[in-house]
Amino acid sequence: MSALFRKVSQVAVIGTATSIGWLLGYNRSHEKGGANFPAIETVSAASYQGSIVNTQVPDVVPVPSPNAPRIAQIMRFGFPSLSNVRSLNDYVLSYDTRNRIPYWVCEHLTAENVAKNPNVDRAKCDFHEDTSVHQYFRSENRDYKGSGFDRGHLAAAGNHRRSQEDCHETFLLSNMSPQVGRGFNRDKWNDVEQYCRQLTKSYANVYVCTGPLFLPRREEDGKLYVKYQVIGQNHVSVPTHFYKVVVCESSTGELDLESFLLPNVEIDDSVPIASFHVPLETIERASGLLIFDKLSQKKFKKINGQKVGWF
Amino acid sequence: MSALFRKVSQVAVIGTATSIGWLLGYNRSHEKGGANFPAIETVSAASYQGSIVNTQVPDVVPVPSPNAPRIAQIMRFGFPSLSNVRSLNDYVLSYDTRNRIPYWVCEHLTAENVAKNPNVDRAKCDFHEDTSVHQYFRSENRDYKGSGFDRGHLAAAGNHRRSQEDCHETFLLSNMSPQVGRGFNRDKWNDVEQYCRQLTKSYANVYVCTGPLFLPRREEDGKLYVKYQVIGQNHVSVPTHFYKVVVCESSTGELDLESFLLPNVEIDDSVPIASFHVPLETIERASGLLIFDKLSQKKFKKINGQKVGWF
Repeated sequence: MSALFRKVSQVAVIGTATSIGWLLGYNRSHEKGGANFPAIETVSAASYQGSIVNTQVPDVVPVPSPNAPRIAQIMRFGFPSLSNVRSLNDYVLSYDTRNRIPYWVCEHLTAENVAKNPNVDRAKCDFHEDTSVHQYFRSENRDYKGSGFDRGHLAAAGNHRRSQEDCHETFLLSNMSPQVGRGFNRDKWNDVEQYCRQLTKSYANVYVCTGPLFLPRREEDGKLYVKYQVIGQNHVSVPTHFYKVVVCESSTGELDLESFLLPNVEIDDSVPIASFHVPLETIERASGLLIFDKLSQKKFKKINGQKVGWF
Repeated sequence: MSALFRKVSQVAVIGTATSIGWLLGYNRSHEKGGANFPAIETVSAASYQGSIVNTQVPDVVPVPSPNAPRIAQIMRFGFPSLSNVRSLNDYVLSYDTRNRIPYWVCEHLTAENVAKNPNVDRAKCDFHEDTSVHQYFRSENRDYKGSGFDRGHLAAAGNHRRSQEDCHETFLLSNMSPQVGRGFNRDKWNDVEQYCRQLTKSYANVYVCTGPLFLPRREEDGKLYVKYQVIGQNHVSVPTHFYKVVVCESSTGELDLESFLLPNVEIDDSVPIASFHVPLETIERASGLLIFDKLSQKKFKKINGQKVGWF
């Protein structure tokens, strides 16, 4: 793990410690007087507090306050993992130091932040190394050069148009995976990305989690093998597949789920993207991640376009 | 990530918070009187404390106090990563939910804890599932059954003989990887494990970090491919290689390093284990981990059996 990633973890821990320290101090000052604050000696995370603690589990994970940091909104339904997490202006990524590509990226799309913005010019963005990643584990432009693969965005550039800087941040190489260009990155995968942006016309909030997969195939000897190419001096892994999981929240708080799994190959234009729908569990088992796991699947009105009837 | 792994992370954070809360309280009680304790208002991690803070970096990472938890001793030279860390009685593991095997396991060997103990009977231990791992990501005995691969310990059973329970904990399936049996797990890999135990005769402390690798090979088309089998219903990945990195500390605090990289194949008995020495950097780049990274490599007197001369 790079020193910088370590630092982020430490900051997180210190942040938590400070808040709890502050809470202790706060309670302490109410030790005798405040009717709503129990004496400090009786307070612990394990002690039953009666009516002052809300023990009802909310039906829907609440929307973070408008003043909350962007990461609280993007990660509202849970972190798929806590490995090398990096929070950017408008998306969050977890970096796989072994494969030199992301484990996952999470985004929060609204009509506002995907709207075309004349001040943002994608053509002015350039692919750049992520210097927060230790040099042993960093992918470089030269790894992709001549490989035959595109530097495929996982957090899509078109989803981050609030500012030039937001757009530019999606060009970090830590947000890229080697993708087949024609028929995939520039075509079918792009269709899925556009579809996600269009969902913001029908839904108030669209939450997207995207990542690579390495899936096995049965070979002639009857056994299952995972096989994938690695490119460049840094051995950047070429995923066999990519997933995209989308949670859509309507303005009235209703939730729908779609999950896509596409092979990293040239896909014919005629294939509808709905044919790549798979159960979320398939993606979770293959990726080793629990995705949007703060949400019970019983919350969803529609899953992969089908109305859900729970008995 | 499983709910239980989440819980472990939370406990760790709360643990840190509590200690800092305690420190705050401690300082507070000295707010006015204690000459050695600055007033609470002036204390923060960022404020310069003059002579009361030791800014000298120690030459050697100090030995944890005998009262420190076992994990502090085992992980003395740093965590290779913080992904799904599980602390057992006598070893620490990081679990790879995607491949259903460890990322790494760390052990601390001394003459005392590897000594034969008549009260510990390995034959009474049985391989058991790790129920702390979410069922999507857990390996099971039936995954290995009929696969042709051994359930290969990464933290070796023979390294943990202080009690029957310590030994039994090494039989958790989260500590296993599929290994070739004859010529590897039962032979050459076992030789490397025995070699590590023998090091406790010459050194006071032996720190071991062990893990799987998935290394590419160049195929006929001139490109590099990673290829490995997955076994069982849970698709447990069969690593192409394993590494073992060993830091040895003499009774006078001198440090030596050895790092081994072995292919997961039948290896002829005549091959000396020293022929599997590789630079630590090779293992670090391939695994995506920085191993024993609290230690500068300049601290080592010998690396892979060779005296080091630093200029």
